[in-house]
Amino acid sequence: MQIAMINDKVMAMSEVGPEYMDRGIFFGEGVYEVLRSYNGKIFAFEEHIERFANSLEAIEITGMDVGQIRTKVQKAFDKAAIANAKIYFHITRGSGPRDHTAAADLKPNFFLTITELKEDSKLKTEGVAVSIYPDLRWKRCDIKSLNLLANVLAKNDAAKKDCWEAVFVDDGGLVTEGSSSAFFAITNDKLQTTELSTHILPSITRKFVIKAARNIGLKIVEESLTPVQARTAAELFLGVTTKDIVPVVRFDGQAIGDGRPGRWTRALIEEFKKFIV
Amino acid sequence: MQIAMINDKVMAMSEVGPEYMDRGIFFGEGVYEVLRSYNGKIFAFEEHIERFANSLEAIEITGMDVGQIRTKVQKAFDKAAIANAKIYFHITRGSGPRDHTAAADLKPNFFLTITELKEDSKLKTEGVAVSIYPDLRWKRCDIKSLNLLANVLAKNDAAKKDCWEAVFVDDGGLVTEGSSSAFFAITNDKLQTTELSTHILPSITRKFVIKAARNIGLKIVEESLTPVQARTAAELFLGVTTKDIVPVVRFDGQAIGDGRPGRWTRALIEEFKKFIV
Repeated sequence: MQIAMINDKVMAMSEVGPEYMDRGIFFGEGVYEVLRSYNGKIFAFEEHIERFANSLEAIEITGMDVGQIRTKVQKAFDKAAIANAKIYFHITRGSGPRDHTAAADLKPNFFLTITELKEDSKLKTEGVAVSIYPDLRWKRCDIKSLNLLANVLAKNDAAKKDCWEAVFVDDGGLVTEGSSSAFFAITNDKLQTTELSTHILPSITRKFVIKAARNIGLKIVEESLTPVQARTAAELFLGVTTKDIVPVVRFDGQAIGDGRPGRWTRALIEEFKKFIV
Repeated sequence: MQIAMINDKVMAMSEVGPEYMDRGIFFGEGVYEVLRSYNGKIFAFEEHIERFANSLEAIEITGMDVGQIRTKVQKAFDKAAIANAKIYFHITRGSGPRDHTAAADLKPNFFLTITELKEDSKLKTEGVAVSIYPDLRWKRCDIKSLNLLANVLAKNDAAKKDCWEAVFVDDGGLVTEGSSSAFFAITNDKLQTTELSTHILPSITRKFVIKAARNIGLKIVEESLTPVQARTAAELFLGVTTKDIVPVVRFDGQAIGDGRPGRWTRALIEEFKKFIV
């Protein structure tokens, strides 16, 4: 008899629910988004939906209409009625017997959660420490996929070093991005961040940060830094959807500037607020 | 109210079962094994259990005793009573709110299926075609993790080209392994296969193939091939747990040898049978 065992329970294969047979768990064959709302309004909704559509297309998950997804998310958000919410959702190719080759008739699975964002104002006023970690990820980090084991390993390593985030350094000795954030340096009135490619996520926050930086008169350089350049930058910060800008005051054990959030970073945090309507 | 939406159903977060909150689906934070039995006996059970223990350790999942896992698998196998079975199991770090940093008190999730293997004798007598695909995977392919999106993309591409398997070619222009198989070439009485490193899985079948090859007098070279070397090899084959040796008669559109399974490959298939007791 074909059987399954879930934790300690043995059952017939036919009794196993589709939630256990999800290609999302077998292969990480799915893509996701994280959005936030400020004061009852979803921030950069269209940008996230567009990126999600790109991710779906990149792994050839079809049969989900982007308009339907937008409607589902908005409906759930309205229902939750949380002013400052974190919205997570993913779509996987569907559920079926585990086989690398997906059956042609699979129906994608949709999963969403809306939770309350706990704001931690100290993050912005005091800044955070970041560690470095080898960029072990795959070569299509532009796809926001569920294959995040390298990110989790990096984040675990950061936690062990009492750091809030880990920043990836690739084989060429260049910083790519954080394990769940974009990474920025400011030196001599110049904002520097990794150029977009298949090696990093096209961060929505990055886009708004660059816009804010232009607004306040910073020059923009889209080019990776080395850890040495990062360590000696005047200011560093992270871009994270749920927290927009998070100052970095320590990089790989080295204090940045005077060890407090820099003036440009503080100016960017203020400028960013103008996008929140 | 904090809510979730599963497909079209909206519910309170508190109603969402742990099976939906598995770090296996959120991050692919889990490892797995595939074993098979021949005539009622699990093949290379200890080797698979040992590799699984290595994978667990590599991603720092603790709290699962290897002896317990062995007992669970054996118990399920006995219960299934399928002579030629495919055994799949995975362990994930556990279920909890989605956060890259895992809570310290998570309990790992265990999931197993035992299904009947459908033997397809034509695979061995006629051989298969393989395509090539860029090796987009992460840098720790020695860990048998649930992060398999690159493998699935490769397999989908192979299917589109009417191929049974896709073989990965890395940035350096070298063949690493198949999307779910080890890869071997034979030329001038010499068996060649990629050397073990963090870039390929330490395949159990590979180990037995090398042993069989020594037994029948082949020289062993553990060194990656280029696609050109593969295309011009006298014989090619794949090593797959569920099917042991599968001859390759076409590589990236090019017929191998006379387009039929080669004599050394056929001899290896026979020699491999001696390991099955």
